[in-house]
Amino acid sequence: MNHVIELLQKHRSIRKFQQKAINEEMVRTIIEAAQCASTSNYIQAYTVIQVCDAAVRKEIAELSGPQLWVEQSPLFLVFCADLKRLDRACSIHEKKMEKGYAEQFIIATVDTALVAQNTMIAAESLGLGGVFIGGIRNNPDRVCELLDIPDDVYPVFGMCLGYPADDPETKPRLPVNIVLKKDRYSTEGDEQRLEEYDRTTSEYYNNRSTCSRDDTWTGQMAEMMSKVMRPHMKEYINGKGFFVT
Amino acid sequence: MNHVIELLQKHRSIRKFQQKAINEEMVRTIIEAAQCASTSNYIQAYTVIQVCDAAVRKEIAELSGPQLWVEQSPLFLVFCADLKRLDRACSIHEKKMEKGYAEQFIIATVDTALVAQNTMIAAESLGLGGVFIGGIRNNPDRVCELLDIPDDVYPVFGMCLGYPADDPETKPRLPVNIVLKKDRYSTEGDEQRLEEYDRTTSEYYNNRSTCSRDDTWTGQMAEMMSKVMRPHMKEYINGKGFFVT
Repeated sequence: MNHVIELLQKHRSIRKFQQKAINEEMVRTIIEAAQCASTSNYIQAYTVIQVCDAAVRKEIAELSGPQLWVEQSPLFLVFCADLKRLDRACSIHEKKMEKGYAEQFIIATVDTALVAQNTMIAAESLGLGGVFIGGIRNNPDRVCELLDIPDDVYPVFGMCLGYPADDPETKPRLPVNIVLKKDRYSTEGDEQRLEEYDRTTSEYYNNRSTCSRDDTWTGQMAEMMSKVMRPHMKEYINGKGFFVT
Repeated sequence: MNHVIELLQKHRSIRKFQQKAINEEMVRTIIEAAQCASTSNYIQAYTVIQVCDAAVRKEIAELSGPQLWVEQSPLFLVFCADLKRLDRACSIHEKKMEKGYAEQFIIATVDTALVAQNTMIAAESLGLGGVFIGGIRNNPDRVCELLDIPDDVYPVFGMCLGYPADDPETKPRLPVNIVLKKDRYSTEGDEQRLEEYDRTTSEYYNNRSTCSRDDTWTGQMAEMMSKVMRPHMKEYINGKGFFVT
């Protein structure tokens, strides 16, 4: 074990923050470190928008849930998958970009996620905490309007960061022997592991310091996955120029 | 600055490895730490397949490029976006999973990438190095056959890990003031920044210790993005049960 692994293990979402600003230099340090993440063939297909405008924050907070922390966190970032810069590179060299490939959508989305995870790690290493905000996909059209996000770019998720004013428990993850398989995808033995995990998560939900409740992982997932999820996303993504072909 | 940020900054892809095995306990430590990454609504929609079988490694190495390091690295992992476990959770609770939503595709792909980036960080903190293998998407059907990957699961990328037998330079990333924007997406000033970055990358390519060449970032990107990229991916992804609706 080492300090880095301990840092990873300590991760939990933080939604309450001290009223202590994060200075520009720290933001820059975090993002520059985050950019060192792997990137598919060097394309670096992402853009991060730091949202400072209070009215915009308020509206994004509202449409994301509401999730008040989007309004209140010292730092709010919107991570976008971005092919527009690559289109510009093509223009500079008088070439035409091939557009709309599912593959490009995957590459840009993955690149964005890798940078975002590094952002979280870098921030946590500096004593900050935070939470990803998938809720911006509730109304991605409006988010694009508010932030002038053009075609060939889409907001994947937001992230709130700040000095924690809360210290919640870490949430138990799936047993490693469910998610790590050897040589082939097999679900042998998973039934029992899921039962065991349901006991673990039930105990977690019953005993946690805030919002305790009766629930299990499979119960929570069954509830969520049996409902339609943001059905507008396919049309939205295609309209933005991604995943058409 | 701190040790974690220094670790992130030192990242570069490693493709040559010492012939020194990574023991099971270390693999487990790495994956367990990686699992602590954020996950959208707790869904943990990923599975990692550790590929040990030499013949399978050889074939994946071939179809990925060829990329010999897939065959030779002490550890080769395939990261899959996985909705199948969630389908199981629905069955346990006698519910029917809503399938094929673009949103689910995004969530599962992002979850997988977050865990993978944590895997890389955890591995690097233990003295290992590695490289992502997007090349498995050259022939995802065959990868699924080889690893028995069922519907509702797709292999997003692979990852080679091991003790480095090489010490390449880090690759200069885009200037932070191109990727980090304030309050709105704007390309003002980016023209000059790209020119500056082209000089930086040209210098990097000219002077690096192996495979030096004349190139720039925009030149490289224009070349790559003006070609069709894995055009089979849309049909493949839809066929696997993702992004249909």
